[in-house]
Amino acid sequence: MCSLSAVLFLGEAEGGKILVFPVDGSHWVNMNLLIQSLHSRGHEVTVVRTATSWYVKEHAPHYRSLTVALPSAISIEQEDFFVTFLVKMLAIHKEGATLSGFVKFYWEMLGTLSNIHRQASLLAVEMFENKTLMQSIRDTQFDVVLLDPGLPVGVLVAHELKLPTVFNVRWITSGEGHFVVAPSPTSYVPMSGYAVSDKMTFGQRVKNTFQYFLNTCIDRFIVCPHYDRLVDRYFGPDVKFYDLLQGADIWLMRVDFVFEFPRPTMPNIAYIGGFQSTPSKPLSSELEEFVQSSGEHGFILMSLGTLVNGLPEEITSEIAAAFAQLPQKVIWRHAMKPPKNVGNNTLLVKWMPQNDLLGHPKIKAFVAHGGTNGIYESMYHGVPIIGIPLLFDQFENVLRLEERGAAKAVDATQLTRQSFLEAIQEVLHNPSYGTNMKRLSALHRDKPMHPLETALYWVEFVMRHKGASHLRTESYRMPWYAFYSVDVVCFLIAVVLTLTAVVVGSIRFLCLRLCGRRKTKKE
Amino acid sequence: MCSLSAVLFLGEAEGGKILVFPVDGSHWVNMNLLIQSLHSRGHEVTVVRTATSWYVKEHAPHYRSLTVALPSAISIEQEDFFVTFLVKMLAIHKEGATLSGFVKFYWEMLGTLSNIHRQASLLAVEMFENKTLMQSIRDTQFDVVLLDPGLPVGVLVAHELKLPTVFNVRWITSGEGHFVVAPSPTSYVPMSGYAVSDKMTFGQRVKNTFQYFLNTCIDRFIVCPHYDRLVDRYFGPDVKFYDLLQGADIWLMRVDFVFEFPRPTMPNIAYIGGFQSTPSKPLSSELEEFVQSSGEHGFILMSLGTLVNGLPEEITSEIAAAFAQLPQKVIWRHAMKPPKNVGNNTLLVKWMPQNDLLGHPKIKAFVAHGGTNGIYESMYHGVPIIGIPLLFDQFENVLRLEERGAAKAVDATQLTRQSFLEAIQEVLHNPSYGTNMKRLSALHRDKPMHPLETALYWVEFVMRHKGASHLRTESYRMPWYAFYSVDVVCFLIAVVLTLTAVVVGSIRFLCLRLCGRRKTKKE
Repeated sequence: MCSLSAVLFLGEAEGGKILVFPVDGSHWVNMNLLIQSLHSRGHEVTVVRTATSWYVKEHAPHYRSLTVALPSAISIEQEDFFVTFLVKMLAIHKEGATLSGFVKFYWEMLGTLSNIHRQASLLAVEMFENKTLMQSIRDTQFDVVLLDPGLPVGVLVAHELKLPTVFNVRWITSGEGHFVVAPSPTSYVPMSGYAVSDKMTFGQRVKNTFQYFLNTCIDRFIVCPHYDRLVDRYFGPDVKFYDLLQGADIWLMRVDFVFEFPRPTMPNIAYIGGFQSTPSKPLSSELEEFVQSSGEHGFILMSLGTLVNGLPEEITSEIAAAFAQLPQKVIWRHAMKPPKNVGNNTLLVKWMPQNDLLGHPKIKAFVAHGGTNGIYESMYHGVPIIGIPLLFDQFENVLRLEERGAAKAVDATQLTRQSFLEAIQEVLHNPSYGTNMKRLSALHRDKPMHPLETALYWVEFVMRHKGASHLRTESYRMPWYAFYSVDVVCFLIAVVLTLTAVVVGSIRFLCLRLCGRRKTKKE
Repeated sequence: MCSLSAVLFLGEAEGGKILVFPVDGSHWVNMNLLIQSLHSRGHEVTVVRTATSWYVKEHAPHYRSLTVALPSAISIEQEDFFVTFLVKMLAIHKEGATLSGFVKFYWEMLGTLSNIHRQASLLAVEMFENKTLMQSIRDTQFDVVLLDPGLPVGVLVAHELKLPTVFNVRWITSGEGHFVVAPSPTSYVPMSGYAVSDKMTFGQRVKNTFQYFLNTCIDRFIVCPHYDRLVDRYFGPDVKFYDLLQGADIWLMRVDFVFEFPRPTMPNIAYIGGFQSTPSKPLSSELEEFVQSSGEHGFILMSLGTLVNGLPEEITSEIAAAFAQLPQKVIWRHAMKPPKNVGNNTLLVKWMPQNDLLGHPKIKAFVAHGGTNGIYESMYHGVPIIGIPLLFDQFENVLRLEERGAAKAVDATQLTRQSFLEAIQEVLHNPSYGTNMKRLSALHRDKPMHPLETALYWVEFVMRHKGASHLRTESYRMPWYAFYSVDVVCFLIAVVLTLTAVVVGSIRFLCLRLCGRRKTKKE
């Protein structure tokens, strides 16, 4: 129903000034697209980056950058940070579901999380302490701060500058964005970090509640303290970091309910899931020739996105062996030393036009790690997925498509050529995977507006009206006991108990008086 | 940003078949507009009406009607039903906030509510028992049932026909629509029937919680039993009426958060508040002449909507006297015997082009009862309101605008010419009312799509995809104890208690053993 050309539907925009705090890596891919569109609509975009940034370039035609040099390099912005992390996690996973594995997993995960946010908070300090930089930002008179709150430094800067904020968000501090801003009943909303459907058994609901407490603890004791310290230092004790996070004007949520389970939401959330998807363009002649050579069997695509170097050789050689047995052609994005047993049908490439390949009529399936960029592109083009989730939300992402019958998951730590081959063949030969993904694609494309247009609309709305406070509940400013009605419930219980006590007391008193009288009479 | 002409933005529609269950009176006004637009997009619309309907005509160019003759006339569909009810309620209100007044109020209100739903359920019986009618509906092969669930007969018919449903809704059974489908924390969501802002004191939160229980009781014990009986009779014991209500595919909510307090919502709610608003057209030459004669003072509009005959003469004569003292001209929609003291500046009319008058540059204020149609029109044109709320939601509606500084409320039961004059003069001479309403107007008009277009889009979406189940949580199918996690909480408390008991027991046992040994040693 909607296409990118519909962006023309938006009226002319008055050029505004936008200060952007992106998150590096795969998050940057979609933030960059949004920035390009904002730039092409006449806005002036300034991107804050660190000197060691992995993806965010210093010079680009569509933005001006503000490069902050940090005393020590931020390791999370270096390419191998997550790959190193992944290798450790795979090793732990391989141990199986033991208590020691569980402890190691959380120890490693929480350590990394704390490290990431500690480093991000250093960026904030560096900015706040650089009076010249802050003054120059102030002098620019920005209209809005656009940020990915996965690393919420921009929230602090926006508060300092008294500017409205727009989040381009799926993950925030330690969980999925909704959990910070919308009610999330544990009975039917699966918590971040727990790959389960929205129809849970009793045991799963218990585990989901446990996960809720765990996530809350991680948020409050591991992540937020890094920023709380800064808030306390720069804004004083009356300001709470969590309130700043909840006070964003508009949440551009990179979610579509064709993919996500339906759950409560809020009026200031606009859904832009799949805003990066565009119709495919023709392939290069070499790629087109390779793809056409697949004949009626078609071809398969494999990519692990920014974790392209993440799998150890013992796994990639199993994958290569399985691919070699297929009549299909395979295009595999692979940047390390190629496995020795790569089949003749398999083309290894360092980079590929993923969206154009996913939109090619000969494609049969997509082998992916389950990052959301890839999932939304695949959903847009209706290509079923063989998922090899590796880290973070990838397990939950693949599960969501499995629940809709549009994907099959493979456990990377247990992967053998046989199990992997079976998974691919099931997706290729059971037509339900393709049919289901095509149904999701039809629903995903059927929107009143293209999600990118929605994103642009709301960024400009916030600039036009200097915020969108009428869409934002300020209930988060209430004390927790009032927010959760604990005081009201206690009061009502006290009233009921008092009334009961009065009634019971009166009856006892009357009985005693009556008995007393009878006794006196008898005597 | 958006205008009705944008409806052209929607692609061509394949003509579908729509079965409509409207609610009579003011609700019909906006349902009719939606039907007209659906008809003009090539859909075939069939409206179910009763033979005694007040507003819904048997013949119209844009729909076919299915007239159901009832054994006894449905009194709620007769024009004086609500006026009679209003007169009784005004008399009760006048008594003031006494216990007897409170009891009388609820007695009268609940009696009327039960009567309305009893009569509506008779319509359902009449339809289900008329096998010929039901067969002819089945034969038509409708694509969707569109209904106003204020009277939810269409929900039952849709279930019988296995058709997807779209609600055009603000009120449902006994409360505002959100309360049936979205989480509604009592700490910051004012309950229907309690005119309070979303920033409540402790006392107000206690009262709000009480109102929540009251509304739940009214829903479960006064309203739903009428339909539960039918559901039991026609669909068997496994189907619950409330589940059918919660199972609607799309909720077209006649709400805009420029007006409503921000609150949790759901993915299958589309907001269409103010979808009836259009730019004003030129007035007739007579009206234009009258309006122009107001000179620099401008004019005031007064209308009580479908309660046009609702005010007793002792009140209307006070209003007339106050109007007579103004330098402004007044246009007053008045259908009864005119008050004797109508001033020369006041024009009484039986009907008026309200939207065109509200959009006239000379208008200064709108005296309204606070029905939502009028409020949204006034908000669209940026005209501040003097509210005389009379019944139902009108008190809450006016309060919402008062909270935004765009309206002033007057208590009809305490109205004197002096107090009314003061209220008008405050709105006329304090510029904040106009400024605030203009700000609301700017926000209200700034939407990615015109709300009417949104409504059309989602009706057609449901027809295209035979429902919208991916946007609907089915958590309502859970047993209540699971939905509210009561079982999980009990289980977790039991685990904690057991663990505590084991630990305490072990420590006691150890202590006893130790003490025992010492004793033995000593001996």
